[in-house]
Amino acid sequence: MSTTAPITATQRVQEAGLRAQAASKRLALLSRAEKDAALVALADALRAATDRIVAANADDLARGRDGGMTESLQDRLRLTPERVASIARALQDVAALPDPIGEVVRGSTLANGLQIKQVRVPMGVIGMVYEARPNVTVDAAGLGLKSGNAMILRGGSAAASSNAVIVDVLREALEQRDLPADAVQLLDGGHDDVEALITARGLVDLVIPRGGASLIRTVVLGATVPVIETGIGNVHVYVDASADLAMATQITLNAKTHRPSVCNAAESLLVHRDVAAAFLPAALEALAGAGVKLYLDDTARGLAGVEGEPVTDDLFATEFHGLEMSVGVVDSLDAAIAHIDRFGTKHTEVIVTQDRAAAREFVARVDAAVVMVNASSRFTDGGEFGFGAEIGISTQKLHARGPMALPELTSTKWVVEGDGQIR
Amino acid sequence: MSTTAPITATQRVQEAGLRAQAASKRLALLSRAEKDAALVALADALRAATDRIVAANADDLARGRDGGMTESLQDRLRLTPERVASIARALQDVAALPDPIGEVVRGSTLANGLQIKQVRVPMGVIGMVYEARPNVTVDAAGLGLKSGNAMILRGGSAAASSNAVIVDVLREALEQRDLPADAVQLLDGGHDDVEALITARGLVDLVIPRGGASLIRTVVLGATVPVIETGIGNVHVYVDASADLAMATQITLNAKTHRPSVCNAAESLLVHRDVAAAFLPAALEALAGAGVKLYLDDTARGLAGVEGEPVTDDLFATEFHGLEMSVGVVDSLDAAIAHIDRFGTKHTEVIVTQDRAAAREFVARVDAAVVMVNASSRFTDGGEFGFGAEIGISTQKLHARGPMALPELTSTKWVVEGDGQIR
Repeated sequence: MSTTAPITATQRVQEAGLRAQAASKRLALLSRAEKDAALVALADALRAATDRIVAANADDLARGRDGGMTESLQDRLRLTPERVASIARALQDVAALPDPIGEVVRGSTLANGLQIKQVRVPMGVIGMVYEARPNVTVDAAGLGLKSGNAMILRGGSAAASSNAVIVDVLREALEQRDLPADAVQLLDGGHDDVEALITARGLVDLVIPRGGASLIRTVVLGATVPVIETGIGNVHVYVDASADLAMATQITLNAKTHRPSVCNAAESLLVHRDVAAAFLPAALEALAGAGVKLYLDDTARGLAGVEGEPVTDDLFATEFHGLEMSVGVVDSLDAAIAHIDRFGTKHTEVIVTQDRAAAREFVARVDAAVVMVNASSRFTDGGEFGFGAEIGISTQKLHARGPMALPELTSTKWVVEGDGQIR
Repeated sequence: MSTTAPITATQRVQEAGLRAQAASKRLALLSRAEKDAALVALADALRAATDRIVAANADDLARGRDGGMTESLQDRLRLTPERVASIARALQDVAALPDPIGEVVRGSTLANGLQIKQVRVPMGVIGMVYEARPNVTVDAAGLGLKSGNAMILRGGSAAASSNAVIVDVLREALEQRDLPADAVQLLDGGHDDVEALITARGLVDLVIPRGGASLIRTVVLGATVPVIETGIGNVHVYVDASADLAMATQITLNAKTHRPSVCNAAESLLVHRDVAAAFLPAALEALAGAGVKLYLDDTARGLAGVEGEPVTDDLFATEFHGLEMSVGVVDSLDAAIAHIDRFGTKHTEVIVTQDRAAAREFVARVDAAVVMVNASSRFTDGGEFGFGAEIGISTQKLHARGPMALPELTSTKWVVEGDGQIR
């Protein structure tokens, strides 16, 4: 009989949660100056540990290659000294951002003299479940620290060695400043850790999944702690009857090909019947020329001078994450909106139009985190929006919608001050 | 073999959800003037239907009496012509409130000329699961309409007849104004309806449970749609070493006895050791004199001139919802905060103190939706806060915290306008 029973995922997460909760109580009381100095120290520590980090990353890459990881995934996983420097710089950028904590959101003095104010406070303990890229580990730690939250991180197994070293470096640097190392913890157990994390009610205040559709589905359906869904983007570009067709081609090309693997890349092109003949041949040729595989409905196929397989409802519903695009011709703005209602994922939707009424109607009726008029969907991004950082793009309606940065990692507290008021 | 299979709860909720979704698309586009006129019409319709509503309520009351319902629960359920008039007036009050929809929360013009703005939009479809009082049916319908949301209501079975007639009256009045009746739907099936409602992902955007701890637990643990938890309040009044003791007695009495059945009533009294001898005898006598049953820790028992059973951890953790109170003496502000951390439910916590540093520390360190200095916990209320209405009091940190009114029933959408910008 063994004297020490193996620790279960639930116990492991329970212990991590208690330590995180203790750390969060200290983080909540730090001044902006203390947090910013710590962020700079974390950046220095990462730079100083470049060799250790790159070596650990080489282990991950070797394991990935042995397991048949694609070259593009290897590239997302790879850390070079330059990339470590850039990750460290991102922490300093977070230090330069305003502190969301303590901001007074609203307030008033009531008729009875009570002074009420709603103040931003940290969430407390935030769990993050994510996939390959190790820079997310640092971004999450930095945004968590600045917003006064303790972070429990569960990165992808592909980056396990890189993440382990990065979190070690961050924790050592926190300890050296007499700050709680448990502000950043990494769960490195199996899949059970995820389930334990997303059901740790009372210990974890929020879980943010960041990754592919199946990861997000697992977290959303299994969680009993509050969740913010991120990142599934079946993004449409709708070219209206009144569109500037040259602009429409540029926007479609950019939205599809600028960085096809990300969630704000376009997946589907809808064209108003009245301009289909004028627009599609050149636009589809440009897309095909950029290496985009096209799936066309019957009308588009009739007009196109390019190769293209027939589109299906399944293809219209697919987020390709690559150089593929579904194309459909619609009879009206109404039909475009109905199509987006059916196949969209409420991430980003684009209309290209010169018609003010059409723009207003599209903006009012399309239900998405971001609705764009005459701009590429690639602008749905915390950095592009001027937030200085991004922890993910929320596609849910509760709490945060669209790019999330520091304020989205906070809650509020009402502070009521009186001099003996009773009812 | 039957030709029509019985409809399941999932099918029933699915159909209600689709109808609500269709209604919500129309509600989202209504102007403030249209919504306010509709609210006034709903109020008129309720007043005109007073006899029908009171008669249906009499059925509920008779069923309740037969089932042994307590007099106090009967009172909460009872609708008189005066109460119907007051419920109708509440709808007119909602009409007078500003429209949250369309409010620009923030915005800027980016360096590339893109104009971005974050605009309040409706959630879409909101499910409410609640218990006895039929006025909640009308409040939810009114706040839902004003915020552009379609409401799927699941009231308590005790109020089934009242709720059915009220919702009929509201739906008829909406139809008469050519507005979608499905803006307000009532689920009147069994417990299965609740489970189907809280798992209707893609159809229901938010569920708000309002009621006792077991209802809220069922919804929170079973839901896969986003939830806002409401209303569990194990509220403490902490009397600090520097408190004005007369003020402390008044606040404690008011917080405990003004309306003991509600969530913002105090359940527990903590007293700093330094003032325990001066404060407790008179304060406990006043509480006992008001009919409050007291549970005392050893120190308090030693000082008290009143009857009192020994307190236990279980009693410290209990929300009594009645004239009972747990009482403990603590060694320090620190110990008070630790006690609240352990037993509190993050609803409302009160400190009575004349010491500015103690007040600041309590406010900073106590993690609750509302933290009060020198005021009764009974002020945690949407009406008292000047919101003009309340759909519940959130005790979670995501999206809304504390009293919730119209803005808390909204989401946002980013609107980005450009003239061809690409990355």
